[in-house]
Amino acid sequence: MIFDLIIIGGGPAGITVAIYASRNNLNTLLFSQNLGGMLSNKAVDIENYTGFPSITGIELAEKFREHLLKQENVLVKAEEVNFIQRENNTFKVKTDTEEYESKTVIIASGSKPRELNILGEKEFLGKGVSYCPVCDGFFYKGKDVAIIGGGNAGFESAIYLNSIANTIYILERGDKFLADKKNQEKVNSFKNIKAFTNAEILEIKGDKFVQSIKWKNNGEVLETEIEGVFVQAGYVPKTDYLKDLVDLNEKKEIIVDESMKTKTKGLFAAGDITNSKVKQIICAASSGAIAALSAYNFLNYEQN
Amino acid sequence: MIFDLIIIGGGPAGITVAIYASRNNLNTLLFSQNLGGMLSNKAVDIENYTGFPSITGIELAEKFREHLLKQENVLVKAEEVNFIQRENNTFKVKTDTEEYESKTVIIASGSKPRELNILGEKEFLGKGVSYCPVCDGFFYKGKDVAIIGGGNAGFESAIYLNSIANTIYILERGDKFLADKKNQEKVNSFKNIKAFTNAEILEIKGDKFVQSIKWKNNGEVLETEIEGVFVQAGYVPKTDYLKDLVDLNEKKEIIVDESMKTKTKGLFAAGDITNSKVKQIICAASSGAIAALSAYNFLNYEQN
Repeated sequence: MIFDLIIIGGGPAGITVAIYASRNNLNTLLFSQNLGGMLSNKAVDIENYTGFPSITGIELAEKFREHLLKQENVLVKAEEVNFIQRENNTFKVKTDTEEYESKTVIIASGSKPRELNILGEKEFLGKGVSYCPVCDGFFYKGKDVAIIGGGNAGFESAIYLNSIANTIYILERGDKFLADKKNQEKVNSFKNIKAFTNAEILEIKGDKFVQSIKWKNNGEVLETEIEGVFVQAGYVPKTDYLKDLVDLNEKKEIIVDESMKTKTKGLFAAGDITNSKVKQIICAASSGAIAALSAYNFLNYEQN
Repeated sequence: MIFDLIIIGGGPAGITVAIYASRNNLNTLLFSQNLGGMLSNKAVDIENYTGFPSITGIELAEKFREHLLKQENVLVKAEEVNFIQRENNTFKVKTDTEEYESKTVIIASGSKPRELNILGEKEFLGKGVSYCPVCDGFFYKGKDVAIIGGGNAGFESAIYLNSIANTIYILERGDKFLADKKNQEKVNSFKNIKAFTNAEILEIKGDKFVQSIKWKNNGEVLETEIEGVFVQAGYVPKTDYLKDLVDLNEKKEIIVDESMKTKTKGLFAAGDITNSKVKQIICAASSGAIAALSAYNFLNYEQN
């Protein structure tokens, strides 16, 4: 069978695509190995998704998941998509185990944590190195930890870990913190969080587990004993496999127009995987609505 | 005192602006005579705002209102803004009773129901003519009514009125209904709703109250006895008073760029009052987040 629409990704963008697709009776297949997407990893309560004054990421992910599962005509599968090809006006979408066909595709698979590519990072992954404080924070009860990255994710991770870990170091490579003011004020109010700018991590050292980091602060090389390193250095989208179908910007994000169209007819993108300037939950969801309506219009008025 | 930000409008866009402004410690004043905006007028349950599988407009408006009122540094006033002027790098914002000053302004006041400008429309306003089925539907229990407009608003009004009124006529001037498929299917399933395309209303007639409409269907002029006329013919933004500060498109919507900037420095717009293609609650909220962050960036990095 040929689907009207295949959605790749089940975060805020992908789920909103599915809601709008279902309302327009599109026969839809959604791929996600993690419904709710990165919401579940959020280290602090979400207070800026309009309608929910304060909610944990896990709870909001569950509400999105419930909303998705009420939609008719939407099949959800947990396979990972590795290949897409346009052929005779339809798309062939391949996962590890199957091949599917669809008239339109919307890419909404978000992005993955950026790796530092420094010594020790791969070696100690799961042995002191983590990309998800909410998932792994518990293992560092009473221990000293470092967070690499001084944006909102880094600061929110520090706030989250504050009640678990002992001393928390935030290391920001740039000369200012990019976290918003509320997060900076909150971090400043905790004595056990120490935040540094111009702080570059050089190496993660240890034996079986992480024991210390080597880092440079304003030119001076230091070694600090810590047992956990949480990398919060931004995200990179998984777009390599789409190369011929879409244009990417310098961040490897998919370039879309205001209707979420890519350069390939019938192929759209939404959410954090696109070149949108503002990466916020509400904005990802909104772009999903727009992409779904564009796919619907394509199927009804533009398809050849 | 000079505010950092004045928000005009308290619907999904304006409330989301306030949430993001508060998180960035902007000293904010929001004007709204109707918190939640047009949500409260929605005739059917809202099922496409991600996170709420099904909720009435009134309930969602209340959740948005609650969220707003939890924000620090946001003052809410119910005055109507009639005049804005930029002078010496600040904005003077005048209401009927007061004058305020702010470094930035975000217009998020949405739009008002479009009038038909036909005979009898003004004369019978409140005497059979209404722009809000949810507000006034109750008065038409067991009576025959007409809905002018065959878009989603018209169809959803018909679905809402189905359990109240007797026979319901939907008159759409164009040659097809613009309502989405789900709404069209639902309307088709009700025997007491009769929907016409190529149907132009010519006059609303009556004595003290509405008694009939004169309309043209495919060229033929008809007169049909009804006691209520619900005008659902789209919306027009209130932008006349902004003329020198913004560029308007042919629909009188404010032209903004992807950061919600208007042509005047420090002046932004969000939601249905802008030239956005997709008018959806989630999209209005998203544009509010973007506008707030643009105002914040303007205050921190661009202001002279």
